[in-house]
Amino acid sequence: MTAAAAHANTTAGKKFDLGNAVELVSKEEGHRQPLAPEFVSLEDFSPLEVAYDFGKIRREDIESGPRSIWRYKQFLPVPGNVDQIPNTEPGCTRLIQADNLAKALGVKKIWIKDDTGNPTHSFKDRVVAVALAAAREFGFKVLACPSTGNLANAVAAAAARAGWDSVVLVPKSLERAKILMSAVYDGSLLAVDGNYDDVNRLATELAGEHEDWAFVNVNVRPYYSEGSKTLGFEVAEQLGWRLPEQIVVPIASGSQLTKVYKGFNEFSQVGLVDESPVKIFGAQASGCSPVSTAYRNGHDVVQPVKPDTIARSLAIGAPADGPYVLDVVRKTGGAIEDVTDDEVRAGIRLLARTEGIFAETAGGVTVATAKKLIEAGKIDPDAETVLLITGDGLKTLDAVEGELGPKATVAPSTESVNQALGL
Amino acid sequence: MTAAAAHANTTAGKKFDLGNAVELVSKEEGHRQPLAPEFVSLEDFSPLEVAYDFGKIRREDIESGPRSIWRYKQFLPVPGNVDQIPNTEPGCTRLIQADNLAKALGVKKIWIKDDTGNPTHSFKDRVVAVALAAAREFGFKVLACPSTGNLANAVAAAAARAGWDSVVLVPKSLERAKILMSAVYDGSLLAVDGNYDDVNRLATELAGEHEDWAFVNVNVRPYYSEGSKTLGFEVAEQLGWRLPEQIVVPIASGSQLTKVYKGFNEFSQVGLVDESPVKIFGAQASGCSPVSTAYRNGHDVVQPVKPDTIARSLAIGAPADGPYVLDVVRKTGGAIEDVTDDEVRAGIRLLARTEGIFAETAGGVTVATAKKLIEAGKIDPDAETVLLITGDGLKTLDAVEGELGPKATVAPSTESVNQALGL
Repeated sequence: MTAAAAHANTTAGKKFDLGNAVELVSKEEGHRQPLAPEFVSLEDFSPLEVAYDFGKIRREDIESGPRSIWRYKQFLPVPGNVDQIPNTEPGCTRLIQADNLAKALGVKKIWIKDDTGNPTHSFKDRVVAVALAAAREFGFKVLACPSTGNLANAVAAAAARAGWDSVVLVPKSLERAKILMSAVYDGSLLAVDGNYDDVNRLATELAGEHEDWAFVNVNVRPYYSEGSKTLGFEVAEQLGWRLPEQIVVPIASGSQLTKVYKGFNEFSQVGLVDESPVKIFGAQASGCSPVSTAYRNGHDVVQPVKPDTIARSLAIGAPADGPYVLDVVRKTGGAIEDVTDDEVRAGIRLLARTEGIFAETAGGVTVATAKKLIEAGKIDPDAETVLLITGDGLKTLDAVEGELGPKATVAPSTESVNQALGL
Repeated sequence: MTAAAAHANTTAGKKFDLGNAVELVSKEEGHRQPLAPEFVSLEDFSPLEVAYDFGKIRREDIESGPRSIWRYKQFLPVPGNVDQIPNTEPGCTRLIQADNLAKALGVKKIWIKDDTGNPTHSFKDRVVAVALAAAREFGFKVLACPSTGNLANAVAAAAARAGWDSVVLVPKSLERAKILMSAVYDGSLLAVDGNYDDVNRLATELAGEHEDWAFVNVNVRPYYSEGSKTLGFEVAEQLGWRLPEQIVVPIASGSQLTKVYKGFNEFSQVGLVDESPVKIFGAQASGCSPVSTAYRNGHDVVQPVKPDTIARSLAIGAPADGPYVLDVVRKTGGAIEDVTDDEVRAGIRLLARTEGIFAETAGGVTVATAKKLIEAGKIDPDAETVLLITGDGLKTLDAVEGELGPKATVAPSTESVNQALGL
């Protein structure tokens, strides 16, 4: 930790080891305040973001680190010994060259960042691991969240491995399979008699009442969201220490897109990669497309909507980081599009058919949006494009249930098989 | 390829690049024959296994290789450029130190090899990738298998990514979710009007009839099964280039256990690790425990059984490699045990609760068997133990469905939550 960091971390009378993190900065007006479990600036009421004093960071330091997001610990608000403390070990998922998909879409080169390989099979393991590490430094004892899916799995699993209690709040109506996936880790899974908005409001109230509960996406959100930078870091390292030319990122709250951008900037800022332009594209489902709509209409603010889409992990009607997404996309020369539920299903199937990767609905949104942006000439077909696949198809089986099945039912004879296959 | 390999590979009048592989050897009497897509010795009717001429292999060659099983290509029957050819990229999954589980089981140290991180979330991606690479060299054009689960997913996905057609045969009665998982990759998934035995018999008939169909676990089985060695290789490399003291491996056909052992031997044979004793333990479900029964009774042969267990991925009543498993386990000073379905469910929940890993029923078998072997004093509590977790809980949700759910259903108020949690 630098001297500046040591200073900032003790101004509140407490001593946190959060590595190179030095303070929190408000996104709107840049007000600075000490590192603490707070998420909104009381000066300008905008979200708080972690600022760092990186010093010198070399490729060798990262390359010799663990095969997990902790190899990037110098870029995260976590203690220097984070890889020695019980936590999950997400990250270092595959980046594969997707030639079949590229051919199907008529472009030169596509890379798939396949985050289904994480411990609970979504990118949420990344953000939760960072939230847990920071929460421990702040003295929290319980890991908590409101959720309808991936986040619940990630929080319950990470807490189990760290030996923490967890409180996971889900709407009572949640599908049985998702309840099971969250219940198996044996934390305190509570079904709330209400919809997701009720659950969310309840989480904020509980965060105010229980001093030792870290709601990952509420009171430690600035730390949590930094975990998404590791997607950008890994893409750059896996490309051989360079930034990609174009990248398509799904938008829920919008945090992931802005953090991938922040990650790219930090890598070039410290000289790990050459500065080079990256066009950042955003993907939404038409049934919940407030950011895409604002982009299309040339607005700077985002009008909330009531979500109605099969892409539930992206169904945030009032995305907190919407305005910042618009800013990043416009600044980098990208674009934002949205796709119908039918296009989402087709996107899931296209990716599975061409590359053998079964993505959740959010992945279908990313693939289908990329297709649409290519057809509209917004994605350059001669430049490479990275697609972020952030979750697993096994968790959203219901989305494709209606249209998939065996090619045929046959008798147990070679004649019957040959006939069914037209041989 | 060595001169010996070049010779062996051309004796049949064809030229295959299968790397350091030189010939096939029968397991019973050691009869040798050229590399070919054959799986049974016509001399002694025992299974054929791949033999190699390794030459010099250095740690640096492996460490600088790809982050997949192809880093071990010199130990596999695959061409030297295998990592440049379209295929899946399984392997390099996590090996984590499981201190919570070790504490719960009263032993000093446990490592979990978490193979749920593979492309289709089971170890089958390893064997299928090797089968595909070898099958391509032999001139096959279609990847095929009979299956009830993990193998179907792995074959359909690998074929999709390689741009091959696939033929996957499943019993008509297979659960809807498993049908979906296999259908999404858009190969030729056929539902067969019969039970799994019928499907298996049909596969063998079709393999005889279609010259360009590679049934991964039938006509290219000697190559396919070599993929399991990579589990052993990774454990050794991830432990810092040494062999573990004890390892627990689930038994279906028994192939995996014998191949993990073969992998350890090959690593010490070429000098990548020091030779050191590894006790190898086998795990079965009591509802399909022919190998465990033979072990208990001191038999050398395995009496087939009719499987009845929730651990369907291990439910092979007549395990082909059963006698070889008995041999390996006895030779290394290990043991074999079996556990009830209730113990399997408890094993799944114990692993999830302690380490945040949600395993399929086969993983529950491994954990529960380890527990039983520890309690019986057969696993040394002061030595380290590696547990192989070879598949994902999301694929066997029905196994735990009955006993998991929310702790409570609450009203959307902090009072209601506090009361439910006894706060």
